[in-house]
Amino acid sequence: MSSTSSHSYPMSSGEDQHSYIHNSSYQKAAIKGVEERIKQAILEKLDLQLNSNLISTFTIADFGCSIGPNTFHVVQSIIDTVKFKHLKENNETNIVPLEFQVFFNDQSNNDFNTLFRTQPLSSESQYFLAGVPGSFYGRLLPRNIIHIGHTSYTIHWLSEVPEHVCDRKSPAWNKNYIHCNNLIEEVTKAYKVQFKKDMEVFLQARAEELVHGGLMIVVGNCLPDGVSMYETWQGHVMETIGDCLLDMAKSGIMSEEKIELFNFPVYFPQFSELKLMIEENGSFMIEMMETISHPFEDKRLSNEFITSMFRAFLTTVIEQHFGNGVVDELFSRLSEKLSKHPIDFEMWKTQVVYHVVLKRK
Amino acid sequence: MSSTSSHSYPMSSGEDQHSYIHNSSYQKAAIKGVEERIKQAILEKLDLQLNSNLISTFTIADFGCSIGPNTFHVVQSIIDTVKFKHLKENNETNIVPLEFQVFFNDQSNNDFNTLFRTQPLSSESQYFLAGVPGSFYGRLLPRNIIHIGHTSYTIHWLSEVPEHVCDRKSPAWNKNYIHCNNLIEEVTKAYKVQFKKDMEVFLQARAEELVHGGLMIVVGNCLPDGVSMYETWQGHVMETIGDCLLDMAKSGIMSEEKIELFNFPVYFPQFSELKLMIEENGSFMIEMMETISHPFEDKRLSNEFITSMFRAFLTTVIEQHFGNGVVDELFSRLSEKLSKHPIDFEMWKTQVVYHVVLKRK
Repeated sequence: MSSTSSHSYPMSSGEDQHSYIHNSSYQKAAIKGVEERIKQAILEKLDLQLNSNLISTFTIADFGCSIGPNTFHVVQSIIDTVKFKHLKENNETNIVPLEFQVFFNDQSNNDFNTLFRTQPLSSESQYFLAGVPGSFYGRLLPRNIIHIGHTSYTIHWLSEVPEHVCDRKSPAWNKNYIHCNNLIEEVTKAYKVQFKKDMEVFLQARAEELVHGGLMIVVGNCLPDGVSMYETWQGHVMETIGDCLLDMAKSGIMSEEKIELFNFPVYFPQFSELKLMIEENGSFMIEMMETISHPFEDKRLSNEFITSMFRAFLTTVIEQHFGNGVVDELFSRLSEKLSKHPIDFEMWKTQVVYHVVLKRK
Repeated sequence: MSSTSSHSYPMSSGEDQHSYIHNSSYQKAAIKGVEERIKQAILEKLDLQLNSNLISTFTIADFGCSIGPNTFHVVQSIIDTVKFKHLKENNETNIVPLEFQVFFNDQSNNDFNTLFRTQPLSSESQYFLAGVPGSFYGRLLPRNIIHIGHTSYTIHWLSEVPEHVCDRKSPAWNKNYIHCNNLIEEVTKAYKVQFKKDMEVFLQARAEELVHGGLMIVVGNCLPDGVSMYETWQGHVMETIGDCLLDMAKSGIMSEEKIELFNFPVYFPQFSELKLMIEENGSFMIEMMETISHPFEDKRLSNEFITSMFRAFLTTVIEQHFGNGVVDELFSRLSEKLSKHPIDFEMWKTQVVYHVVLKRK
């Protein structure tokens, strides 16, 4: 889950036990779960004139790539698929092989040094790599140069917290809640407005960067239609993190006012809501848009796994608001609470994995 | 002076007192010294069809960019010149403005995080930035995409130390010397062979990456024709560093064998030698090739300045061979020696600054 906020919160850097590198298997499983469907969509829907000599360099961008390893896997999968299609559609023996250039984008304070150092080196992964720092809520690349864009587990990160949700005087005040749990209608509305605004900017920027006929792949978690965050186990974990913060305030580790001024800039739309936004933007045709259950949903996720995953996901935002000292304590409290009151996965609803393939009109 | 060796030695990272960021004013002065001539060459020699709509993105690459600030200055200067030329040659009022994309290249272990963090933000410096990790002794970018390439203070870094110069049994053995001082003919020959090999690879790779008619700018230090390294003050400083290492061996801080196995992978050609190599490669026409005296040559450089400059330039190579512990000691000894025996700039010869503008045939 890569940071993409204008208030920039990259995933935990480096390669230690709490780093995103070692705590991104939830995202990885989702990406692998939809991989075959996306490959199929590329084979069927990509109709750039690969069989002419018009394209000598095929250009791919991963927006919000974080620091691996998922981004390298995704990129390799796209390249393999395009190469396969290119060979299949060309019977000529003396065809000039395509060259691939891949742009890895994330915020300027993403750990690009680690990203570059950990690029897998193999004779098969031959592509020209470039890192592109900056928020994807804005243009990052020149006009008309990308053939396939990709982003996964990123667009739930808003460019900013909707301003009214931390304002005690506003009807959209989110009280002591720290995320959009859909319990207060005005709060949901404020988050929805911000999400729509950000999606417009995202899609507009990608529309300018992609060539006509280029594909944009988007993968992430969303809510099934009709399901609210407070009904899901993911929402329940976020609530529990909020409870831990309040406990820490009671112990004098932080003030309740500080918590009141805090909300995660994160929003998970319902499936149809996301679809409508893409349709209303109008720059892209929806070639495929589906959901699957997350591959881990049939397993009982351990408390340890959940704690580590949310820690890697949320650490930077928490540190930026509460300072560097609280993260260890907070997640040790989360782990303790989850041990005492294990999540009943039968009882809670859950988010699903959406995967979308868009074609630039 | 950016590291470009396959055995990769980037400039000192970060932003502390010993970093390249704070010790690159010698290079900066040279770059500024030749800036006007290079601008003029771009205005006169660049004949890409900027006045058609064939080019909507103008693409620039800086090879061996290190971590700034010089690379940002050079790139901005090139962009300003191209924009000026573009406007001058287009009287139409509704011309589509060029977009600029700039590839900043250096070794994978260059500190790209610092590079990205220190990019100057101004409304005038609008270009799309991308970092490209990897050795420029090899392809880094797709075919035919670069309009202007640039490299400064880089190609004196060889991809490796010529193997025989550390071999006691070879006629090219460099004894206790630690660089190519031109005192031993066989050593000079070994360095020359390596430099020629590296230049071939460099020019071949850039020839593939540049569009036909694209310009390649190369700036650096060379020896005037007929002058040897041992006759220059720069060579004298390198000898003095060698003496300090031997003193440290005598004090038991390191072994003499360790020093015998060490040579800097650095070679400064004579002007005509460099020219001949470019001509023999044959991919480029030489549109301009000149030298100037370094702007600092009329000043007496302080010992402190020289020590800091050579420290930022050489630290990584020294650390990789001798370990992390010796750098402080070594440069404190250098500083002491230079204080006791100040450099007589009247007596020593000096390197000069060359600047070359090549056009891709």
